[in-house]
Amino acid sequence: MSARIDVGVLGATGVVGQQIVARLARHPWFRVAWLGASERSVGRRYGDLPWRAGGMCPPAAARLSVEAPEPRHAPSIVFSALDAATASTLEPQFAASGRLVVSNASAHRMRPDVPLIVPEINPHDIRLVEHQPWSGSLITNPNCSSVFLALALAPLVPFGLRAVTVSTLQALSGAGYPGVASLDALANVVPFIAGEEEKLETEPLKILGARVPISAQATRVPVVDGHTLLVSVAFEQRVEADDLRQAWSGFQGPEHVRALPAAPARPLVLSDLPDRPQPRLDAGEGDGMSVTIGRLRACAVLDWRFVALGHNLVRGAAGAAILNAELAVATGAAGAARMLEVARDEEEVPIPSAC
Amino acid sequence: MSARIDVGVLGATGVVGQQIVARLARHPWFRVAWLGASERSVGRRYGDLPWRAGGMCPPAAARLSVEAPEPRHAPSIVFSALDAATASTLEPQFAASGRLVVSNASAHRMRPDVPLIVPEINPHDIRLVEHQPWSGSLITNPNCSSVFLALALAPLVPFGLRAVTVSTLQALSGAGYPGVASLDALANVVPFIAGEEEKLETEPLKILGARVPISAQATRVPVVDGHTLLVSVAFEQRVEADDLRQAWSGFQGPEHVRALPAAPARPLVLSDLPDRPQPRLDAGEGDGMSVTIGRLRACAVLDWRFVALGHNLVRGAAGAAILNAELAVATGAAGAARMLEVARDEEEVPIPSAC
Amino acid sequence: MSARIDVGVLGATGVVGQQIVARLARHPWFRVAWLGASERSVGRRYGDLPWRAGGMCPPAAARLSVEAPEPRHAPSIVFSALDAATASTLEPQFAASGRLVVSNASAHRMRPDVPLIVPEINPHDIRLVEHQPWSGSLITNPNCSSVFLALALAPLVPFGLRAVTVSTLQALSGAGYPGVASLDALANVVPFIAGEEEKLETEPLKILGARVPISAQATRVPVVDGHTLLVSVAFEQRVEADDLRQAWSGFQGPEHVRALPAAPARPLVLSDLPDRPQPRLDAGEGDGMSVTIGRLRACAVLDWRFVALGHNLVRGAAGAAILNAELAVATGAAGAARMLEVARDEEEVPIPSAC
Amino acid sequence: MSARIDVGVLGATGVVGQQIVARLARHPWFRVAWLGASERSVGRRYGDLPWRAGGMCPPAAARLSVEAPEPRHAPSIVFSALDAATASTLEPQFAASGRLVVSNASAHRMRPDVPLIVPEINPHDIRLVEHQPWSGSLITNPNCSSVFLALALAPLVPFGLRAVTVSTLQALSGAGYPGVASLDALANVVPFIAGEEEKLETEPLKILGARVPISAQATRVPVVDGHTLLVSVAFEQRVEADDLRQAWSGFQGPEHVRALPAAPARPLVLSDLPDRPQPRLDAGEGDGMSVTIGRLRACAVLDWRFVALGHNLVRGAAGAAILNAELAVATGAAGAARMLEVARDEEEVPIPSAC
Repeated sequence: MSARIDVGVLGATGVVGQQIVARLARHPWFRVAWLGASERSVGRRYGDLPWRAGGMCPPAAARLSVEAPEPRHAPSIVFSALDAATASTLEPQFAASGRLVVSNASAHRMRPDVPLIVPEINPHDIRLVEHQPWSGSLITNPNCSSVFLALALAPLVPFGLRAVTVSTLQALSGAGYPGVASLDALANVVPFIAGEEEKLETEPLKILGARVPISAQATRVPVVDGHTLLVSVAFEQRVEADDLRQAWSGFQGPEHVRALPAAPARPLVLSDLPDRPQPRLDAGEGDGMSVTIGRLRACAVLDWRFVALGHNLVRGAAGAAILNAELAVATGAAGAARMLEVARDEEEVPIPSAC
Repeated sequence: MSARIDVGVLGATGVVGQQIVARLARHPWFRVAWLGASERSVGRRYGDLPWRAGGMCPPAAARLSVEAPEPRHAPSIVFSALDAATASTLEPQFAASGRLVVSNASAHRMRPDVPLIVPEINPHDIRLVEHQPWSGSLITNPNCSSVFLALALAPLVPFGLRAVTVSTLQALSGAGYPGVASLDALANVVPFIAGEEEKLETEPLKILGARVPISAQATRVPVVDGHTLLVSVAFEQRVEADDLRQAWSGFQGPEHVRALPAAPARPLVLSDLPDRPQPRLDAGEGDGMSVTIGRLRACAVLDWRFVALGHNLVRGAAGAAILNAELAVATGAAGAARMLEVARDEEEVPIPSAC
Repeated sequence: MSARIDVGVLGATGVVGQQIVARLARHPWFRVAWLGASERSVGRRYGDLPWRAGGMCPPAAARLSVEAPEPRHAPSIVFSALDAATASTLEPQFAASGRLVVSNASAHRMRPDVPLIVPEINPHDIRLVEHQPWSGSLITNPNCSSVFLALALAPLVPFGLRAVTVSTLQALSGAGYPGVASLDALANVVPFIAGEEEKLETEPLKILGARVPISAQATRVPVVDGHTLLVSVAFEQRVEADDLRQAWSGFQGPEHVRALPAAPARPLVLSDLPDRPQPRLDAGEGDGMSVTIGRLRACAVLDWRFVALGHNLVRGAAGAAILNAELAVATGAAGAARMLEVARDEEEVPIPSAC
Repeated sequence: MSARIDVGVLGATGVVGQQIVARLARHPWFRVAWLGASERSVGRRYGDLPWRAGGMCPPAAARLSVEAPEPRHAPSIVFSALDAATASTLEPQFAASGRLVVSNASAHRMRPDVPLIVPEINPHDIRLVEHQPWSGSLITNPNCSSVFLALALAPLVPFGLRAVTVSTLQALSGAGYPGVASLDALANVVPFIAGEEEKLETEPLKILGARVPISAQATRVPVVDGHTLLVSVAFEQRVEADDLRQAWSGFQGPEHVRALPAAPARPLVLSDLPDRPQPRLDAGEGDGMSVTIGRLRACAVLDWRFVALGHNLVRGAAGAAILNAELAVATGAAGAARMLEVARDEEEVPIPSAC
């Protein structure tokens, strides 16, 4: 176990930070060795802080002391689950100090020199880090709803996407903790999430390398985990339902991505039940890393409509960041090859042969 | 009080039937004198059946015995809160027996000789009853989501509507009782409601007398009362946001409709708060008879987007039927004038002068 | 209208403060003329602040500017919806400045010289204000759950109460805004509410003037409004179920309390349905001022068990404070008689003859 | 894999039946080979029926055809997830046909010759089957809330339990599917569950072999999984908090029970956080097989109070039945030894040495 690569988590006490820690507890390559959070928690034992990620805080992480969010003692790879405002200044500091920052924050996603990666779609964008001004580097995963939309659209781009509309019904865990007040959430819909529609209309385009008008309407609904997207798409040409189904069914990332530990067997899962996907039943698909698509039918205004659903804390946040970190390590991009070798020297680490 | 017009309620034990009974308890014109329901309840005291409409069952109704759903002893005006299947055979029987049937059921809404009325929009369609084959007549109100969409679109039709997309987040009470199982509802989204999208794509067109493609996606969300609609609209020509706002603000029904007891002061209420309308906060607007509109903003695919919300049990069902019955009585349409006169002979009834 | 007595509301922007403002909008005696809140809101138009009490902010209150929480410009009667910490210092300042402070806060409830009143139970305790050190005075209503327990127990005291256990399932609105985080509330139970069990074990005793051991377990459940109490009681002697039912059914306050505008026709409502009371169906009973009791049955450990339910924001907070203020005015206690006379000089105010 | 013992599941399409199938998918000893359900489902492919147990229906079970609930083709061990009414006649038929029926149904639990087992507490009661009139046998697990109460009380019995009161806040999944209507469940409490209080007051006594008055109040709350119990206990003698804590911490079943595959490492888990246990955070403890206890504090009426919580579908139903079946096989009771040997002949099965 000591041969696993030490990683840190910035913003370790939040909903996404805890999810990263939880999912890394039995990760074959990574070991959580450093936890950074805001002043309020610094110096406290991580296991003594409120744990909301389900089950128990992993014992190894529980024993760590929370540290100040400074690069000094942080390991070479640092996950960032910071809020956007904090990330905007802290992440460059960590990158400048030579760290590989694997961020879930929105602050730098749209910078031209920052990779915004969904490994099954645009793994090669990781090379953008070569243009970064830092001795380390910074890679990002998309906003939770954006990644579900990008994955659902990726197989459709070759048909000539002309327009996309999307309405989202987003879970409460996407707002972090304490997030939405229960009096606003219970038995209610809040038809507004600050900044969300803008992200949904821009991030998928950077990921897909496409120019398509996207119109997004985002709402918050009383669901714990799992964002539901109601999507309509128009194409340049006539496309049949079976074309879409086959494109989705056949979709998978390149071989070296499929071999990554966190990569799901099927990034997209089709459901042909009439009332699916549903967050309570389908968000856990592929250990939370798959997007489920259903209800494909003709649209009277655009061409086709469907429903897509994903787990906002997993493929939409913690799992996405971990998959990105795996990609960096496996491809040796972002200066990560060296880390892997150091670890390999010590003990056998199960790296897929394709790396 | 004895001068009020006796009315009956078919399907009196359901969620909508109870809501009609509740709202008629203090109605200035109508008095509930007859309650019809399925065999299971026949012969039972209405007040002994489970009451789910909030507060207490109105004492006058509580004392009535539930009767078989046959016209024989029913009064001249009968509200129908039947399910579609039952309504398809029972409502014509009541109309054939000379009754004015004021129906919330979908069974006959799209028949060319059946008025589908939102009084502020198409009150004159009530004259369609003249083409009905029955000695009595049948008038209907729209599906709950359709009426909200129709009201939101009505003021926009003059600008040349070209296309409409709508995603709905519908409350559980819209599914009746027992309706959705709680294991399907709690902390979940069900992205399918049988027949709902078809109604949303056709009923508003009959009401508006318009031909516009409408694409609807309907979902069920864990909300008690209040349907939220995310709408995008495209126009034949350029329209400014202020044009829309003024059209909505200035919208009202004709004078004789505004004078009806159940007519809200403002059928459409504009909210300029960034996160409204919300079902918990806004469904009760105008005693449940107003539709609240907010979040008007440009759409990247069509022209404009906005959020509309209404109370599905009130403007979307019970209140809509009552307003329709008032319209029939006040205009003397559907053979209702006679009833009113009979009542007037006995005692002064506060009918608006405009009738 | 100008003859109504001007009143102020301290903590006017919170959940309880808004509820007080909402319920006073059409009050026959009182008119909201002054709104105090924390610095953040001072100087802002009340109608521009977020309104969560349902419907719209009353127009007359909406036009007021929020003022600093200082007695200087406050009217003679001031409702306090402050949190306990703020109330502990501010309320004495207002009382010292000659105001009648009608408080919902817990800070001073248990002071020997502060009346803790449920008007149907212990209206005469209002005379305790004569021992207060201030030129004005301070009267309080109980904690939301305490008032329901006190009302349910009051008719049982004459039978010789020996012990009481109570488990509460409390609504989210009882925690104020933002209150409980939705991730803690949705589809969950939190078996702890700070300070609640202590209040439940002491406040009813002060109100009832009784010495009985009470054991309370308090939980927070995902309900919007309405606290449910599961109660067991033991008596010194044998008591029959019918004795209890009659005691509850016959319970009412003294005549001068029953005549108060906010007093419900029946403070206690018995339900004999097997699965009632329920918060969604019964919290609104008596316009929120009645406590509903049901499920009376033998207890294998103590003697009898039952379920009691009340609306935490109404009888449990805003409505309770208003009823207390009415009591003060109607009895002339707490220096309130003078206020009433001033108002009466100007115009006829509908005071019940019993005052 | 073929050496695993074939088992059947009666009532395989319900919430508990699906949970049994789900949990047996990777069971080391058992393999689901037969699925029985009511007429409506007979002949259908199990995988084509609605699956509500999370994730996907296990592929091996999905391929089976649902059969009529008759013993003819059923394997030697049959789990019963039938409702009580059906179980009362069907279970004896299966037992009479030589099957070992491992039942979650309440129909026969209190029969003197039917073991009602919580393996950590009363594993030896399985010998009661020797008095059964059938060629096969029938063993049962308790009602969901009863098992949590029994486990929490078991370590306290030696201190001389004198009285127990318990209030339950029970999850919706405990009511099966469709179960509670969402309009009754959402944002509401239903203070009644048919038959539940009676079970809570009797079943634990049979399991514990104790005679203690238990007073139970059961409610349904809007929680998906996890029942919360508020418990008060009185003892014959003075007992300190630390005595209780040590009794709970040290509690474990006999060695041969601890070795069973479904047995949790710790049947009871103590939490010292002030606001725990909570269903969303703690129901999954020990893979759903542990009961979490917290909030121990003095009781003003009895002696001590605490909160206990368990997963109603796992330790409260499916997991409890599986653990009972394991106990039967491992101890060779109930004619199960023979089955095991048959399987062993074919291939090595990992039976714990203690058997």
